[in-house]
Amino acid sequence: MILLFAYTDNEQQAISLAKEAGYELGKMKIHHFPDGESLVQLETNVRNKNVILFCSLDHPDNKLVAIMFFAQTAKELGAKSVGLIAPYLGYMRQDQRFHDGEALTSNIVATFLSQHFDSLITVDPHLHRHTSMHEIYTIPVKIIHAADAIAEWIKGNVQNPVLIGPDEESGQWVTDVAKKIDVPYIILSKTRRGDKDVEISAPELDKYKILTPVIVDDIISTARTMIATVKHLKEAGMNPPVCIGVHAVFAGDSYQMLHSAGIMKIVTCNTIAHPSNAIDIAYLLEY
Amino acid sequence: MILLFAYTDNEQQAISLAKEAGYELGKMKIHHFPDGESLVQLETNVRNKNVILFCSLDHPDNKLVAIMFFAQTAKELGAKSVGLIAPYLGYMRQDQRFHDGEALTSNIVATFLSQHFDSLITVDPHLHRHTSMHEIYTIPVKIIHAADAIAEWIKGNVQNPVLIGPDEESGQWVTDVAKKIDVPYIILSKTRRGDKDVEISAPELDKYKILTPVIVDDIISTARTMIATVKHLKEAGMNPPVCIGVHAVFAGDSYQMLHSAGIMKIVTCNTIAHPSNAIDIAYLLEY
Repeated sequence: MILLFAYTDNEQQAISLAKEAGYELGKMKIHHFPDGESLVQLETNVRNKNVILFCSLDHPDNKLVAIMFFAQTAKELGAKSVGLIAPYLGYMRQDQRFHDGEALTSNIVATFLSQHFDSLITVDPHLHRHTSMHEIYTIPVKIIHAADAIAEWIKGNVQNPVLIGPDEESGQWVTDVAKKIDVPYIILSKTRRGDKDVEISAPELDKYKILTPVIVDDIISTARTMIATVKHLKEAGMNPPVCIGVHAVFAGDSYQMLHSAGIMKIVTCNTIAHPSNAIDIAYLLEY
Repeated sequence: MILLFAYTDNEQQAISLAKEAGYELGKMKIHHFPDGESLVQLETNVRNKNVILFCSLDHPDNKLVAIMFFAQTAKELGAKSVGLIAPYLGYMRQDQRFHDGEALTSNIVATFLSQHFDSLITVDPHLHRHTSMHEIYTIPVKIIHAADAIAEWIKGNVQNPVLIGPDEESGQWVTDVAKKIDVPYIILSKTRRGDKDVEISAPELDKYKILTPVIVDDIISTARTMIATVKHLKEAGMNPPVCIGVHAVFAGDSYQMLHSAGIMKIVTCNTIAHPSNAIDIAYLLEY
């Protein structure tokens, strides 16, 4: 029997998963003291249970400390095992030292999570320079792919789509989604000049002008990549696009900015709880 | 040769210590990405150096992640050793499970710091149920006491003081300070009803009415203990007190509230950078 706990942000997804998979739901409290310290309390007895914590790791810094408290406490109180479901796994993009002396945070966080948890389930982690999770994780990692769910959603909701991959990193992945539902696709290329400054160049778009462009990317964070892509499609005379992201990070006011960029719709998977969630993947996250 | 780095908040104290102790000062950057992730960059070469990070652990949750990034990166880049100077050491008060299922965070944080750092220097850690740092830390810990510096400050700045310990926990400590400068002292007793709700009871104060009360405590956090003590002294007809804290945590608006409570002055040691700092202890933090 699995006992599933949820970090505050992820209670809805956890309830949905528990129902689907027949897990028992555990109760926990996270209290923030006025001095900036946190306290985690496991209100359900974990002794001899296989315990799993559902905690998506967007905006991760505070959460990393809280989930360490959770995992260590569950072990001290006799849990048989402590697993983590982190549908969005932060810190995967700092996968090399881009400048001398920089922390290789993808690896440090992988070591940290491997030390505190016995296993990990995540959705489409941002693997770029790392080709496999086993390069950096020492615990079993199960990767769930959102491609089928996204392909199904496009098939059911968009007439005459053409899929747009905003950069080479998303290329393989967008190609897969397009092939699943047998629709055309284009992969653009991206130059990043800073956290919030992105330029897009694209091949000939003319022949797709009567179709509905569907931009698909793994992470929408500052949304600068999406917005630059939307602008580029507009300049090329394309229809307003549907924007699909697996992970709705949406830093700062990026959601509002993308909304105002001349799009038809923003749709995301519920790996991170967000108003744009329309594609349910929570039920897929079974151990 | 020691190479000393400072977390943003603690640059002034680190400069003062480096000057006193003849340490080389290292340069580091902490960048916060718009998505809530952080990046630490060591701009000074650490190879074969004994590296120390100066980072006081008030409001610790974000800092714990950043200092883990610092320590692991310093080690990966060839530092001979990586020590931590944390004049204020957060999470020392959760030293037992006050309710079932609570995380014993004093111990978890001690394990975490012991794992990432080779040694620790701190100032008057809040030891209550733990009687020694070695119960929870597996690395060498050097404790610096602020009592001498506080005693000197009182001697030089307050005429006819009577020292007030607001509760039994501060008792031994206030007694020590009082004896160093041969002044009278009283230890009150405290009942805590919640994070921000504190009641004070005190013995006969009449005979000290002509003296200047000096309330001394280790941590001023919500300041509710200090404020309840100030109120009690006022009701007993005492003079407006000088309030001294070792650690100026000052959660939320507590500094303003203590200021408005009818006091003469608030004075703290510079274990945490704060406008109330008047007692320098940074130069004492030598390895």
